[in-house]
Amino acid sequence: MRVLICGVDGYLGWALAQHLAARGHEIAGIDDYSRRRWVEEMGADSAMPIASMPDRLQVFKETFETELTYWEGDLKEYSLVEKAFKEFGPEAVVHLGECPSAPYSMIDVHHAVGVHNNNVGSTFNLLFAIRDLAPQTHLLKLGTMGEYGTPNVAIPEGFFEIDYRGRKDRLPFPRQAGSFYHWSKVSGSNHVMFASKIWGVRSTDVMQGVVFGTRIDNMGDDERLLTRLDFDQCFGTAINRFSCQAVIGHPITTYGKGSQKRGFLPLRDSMQCLTLALENPPQQGEYRVFNQFEEVHDLTELANKVQRAAANLGMDVEIRGVDNPRAEQEDHFYEPDHSNLLDLGYKPTHDVEAEVTIMLEDLQKYSDRVEMHRAALMPDVRWDGQRKKSTFI
Amino acid sequence: MRVLICGVDGYLGWALAQHLAARGHEIAGIDDYSRRRWVEEMGADSAMPIASMPDRLQVFKETFETELTYWEGDLKEYSLVEKAFKEFGPEAVVHLGECPSAPYSMIDVHHAVGVHNNNVGSTFNLLFAIRDLAPQTHLLKLGTMGEYGTPNVAIPEGFFEIDYRGRKDRLPFPRQAGSFYHWSKVSGSNHVMFASKIWGVRSTDVMQGVVFGTRIDNMGDDERLLTRLDFDQCFGTAINRFSCQAVIGHPITTYGKGSQKRGFLPLRDSMQCLTLALENPPQQGEYRVFNQFEEVHDLTELANKVQRAAANLGMDVEIRGVDNPRAEQEDHFYEPDHSNLLDLGYKPTHDVEAEVTIMLEDLQKYSDRVEMHRAALMPDVRWDGQRKKSTFI
Repeated sequence: MRVLICGVDGYLGWALAQHLAARGHEIAGIDDYSRRRWVEEMGADSAMPIASMPDRLQVFKETFETELTYWEGDLKEYSLVEKAFKEFGPEAVVHLGECPSAPYSMIDVHHAVGVHNNNVGSTFNLLFAIRDLAPQTHLLKLGTMGEYGTPNVAIPEGFFEIDYRGRKDRLPFPRQAGSFYHWSKVSGSNHVMFASKIWGVRSTDVMQGVVFGTRIDNMGDDERLLTRLDFDQCFGTAINRFSCQAVIGHPITTYGKGSQKRGFLPLRDSMQCLTLALENPPQQGEYRVFNQFEEVHDLTELANKVQRAAANLGMDVEIRGVDNPRAEQEDHFYEPDHSNLLDLGYKPTHDVEAEVTIMLEDLQKYSDRVEMHRAALMPDVRWDGQRKKSTFI
Repeated sequence: MRVLICGVDGYLGWALAQHLAARGHEIAGIDDYSRRRWVEEMGADSAMPIASMPDRLQVFKETFETELTYWEGDLKEYSLVEKAFKEFGPEAVVHLGECPSAPYSMIDVHHAVGVHNNNVGSTFNLLFAIRDLAPQTHLLKLGTMGEYGTPNVAIPEGFFEIDYRGRKDRLPFPRQAGSFYHWSKVSGSNHVMFASKIWGVRSTDVMQGVVFGTRIDNMGDDERLLTRLDFDQCFGTAINRFSCQAVIGHPITTYGKGSQKRGFLPLRDSMQCLTLALENPPQQGEYRVFNQFEEVHDLTELANKVQRAAANLGMDVEIRGVDNPRAEQEDHFYEPDHSNLLDLGYKPTHDVEAEVTIMLEDLQKYSDRVEMHRAALMPDVRWDGQRKKSTFI
């Protein structure tokens, strides 16, 4: 299958290119390195060393014996998207070309607008390109479990049947996102749902949990195949950041009470799930929603798991709460469904501790890269607009 | 009260400035004339003659014996919004500075992105300005009844209590908008709701029905006080367009079966409702939603009303269906609540036929202005991306 990966230089994008190529798919990609720039803006760098795109393309060819067709450019430019569609003729497009950070979107008005316009504008371009140039193409769009927020009821996969004042309907489940980034994903979901309805676009909207881990099976030993792994306050998500803290002996920091619950899955499971979605495409006009995660945990449980895995590797690290820079519910009900991908054949690989152990072993080799940007570990972007470093509780 | 009207040069904005000034409020406004340009792009012009902004400011001063403080500029520029906030110190901001056209947003990818970025970006700027410069300021945001779409259940005002799998919550009512314009309004609603929650912004989100009519009581006879009235396929909403068709003997055109139901209210009632919202502001941190309309009708009923009102004025006009350029449900359940504004004291003024009669008398004076742009009455912007004139069924 010809798969166009938007955001191919990113954490998921570069891993997915390899995972799909190893399965014999033909890969093209678009990127403009904005993720590298955003992380640099936060005063950080990837913990795992990442090769330049020319080196990545070279090692990709050596490893998978096929070219990755690549365009450097901004997905907000419709002419670029058009060019890629015309030259490559994708059968599927995976949209990983969005800015994936809640705190980054909350820095100030310019970041809020920038993240929103980037995420929504790129999705618009893909939808119109599919409509006008390749109506059979399957759009696999990355959303986030964060779109739902933390309602006091169970969370279905996208839609629910309701009985309201004596009448019934199947409606989109209400979204209650917790940052402007998450709301940009809600907009994207809405636009994809609408395009499927009016234009017959076939689409899969993945409400993804928090992804963690350094590895997929196909990466092997060549450093140039490694994908990025961020640990700064904006792009370093919970388990990845905890693991980077552990390898430099920095306390593992949970926010507030640490009782916030989220869904999580290893990077290699994300690859497996996205591949299942691609290899089992929806019907023309179908808009399907997958809640994509392996396990639900609260953040303190996860910190404990990282602490235990680190201890088993001889690293002694403490867990400390910091004042929560976010405005969010800390104690809440959380019961999201996630059967659609299991029904398609998703087989969870490692549990959190096993995957974290692999990650910690990787990160130990590069702990100097984390140490060098140690200051980026503690948050100072606050939901109230102040820029003030959190302190230990 | 010091009220900043964003989009003060528009259909509602210019009328509201007068209505509030007549009640003794102090008015400021921002505009960049984009509405004038959009309508020109559609090959049309306002049916009612509209004065230039310098003339408007002059007649405003003569009529209300007070200045309207005015900034010309783009609401997407945060520095402009900041300047207006600092110089005027608004106690309330009315956001009418959005592109209000469904078809305009469906023209092509550039219009979809442009409408979205304009509407969402301007709302972001107002929210951040309130947070950082004037946290007590009440944001009165114009949404649209079209955000809800046409679900098969009753439509509450913004939120509903649900019982789902044995647990209860109060959740935002799901939105199922019918154009990218309407989805941009959903985004705006989401962002305002979120800002109220995390920043304590006091806000009113008005899900407004379709507004019609040429008049508010304060306009008097001076032509320079008239507000615009559009009839082109993009900016001319149903009753206004029907009335313009009637005065030039063009058939009144309904789309498809003409059985689509919507909520409607006269321009003067919109002024009354917005004023009630301003003079009865929400609490700090409160996000309240008002469904703002007077009556629900289907489009054929409305066409009949316009036809009858025209006949009473001696104009003989036929009603003809054209093939529907939109992708929308034509036969559907529609039962939206609208008690919040009635509870605040909203007293509907005229019924549709009485208000249409006043409008037709106004439009008869300017029928040559409609005749000159007759071609703009028939739609060619289609939801499927084709640009093809609708034909009579």
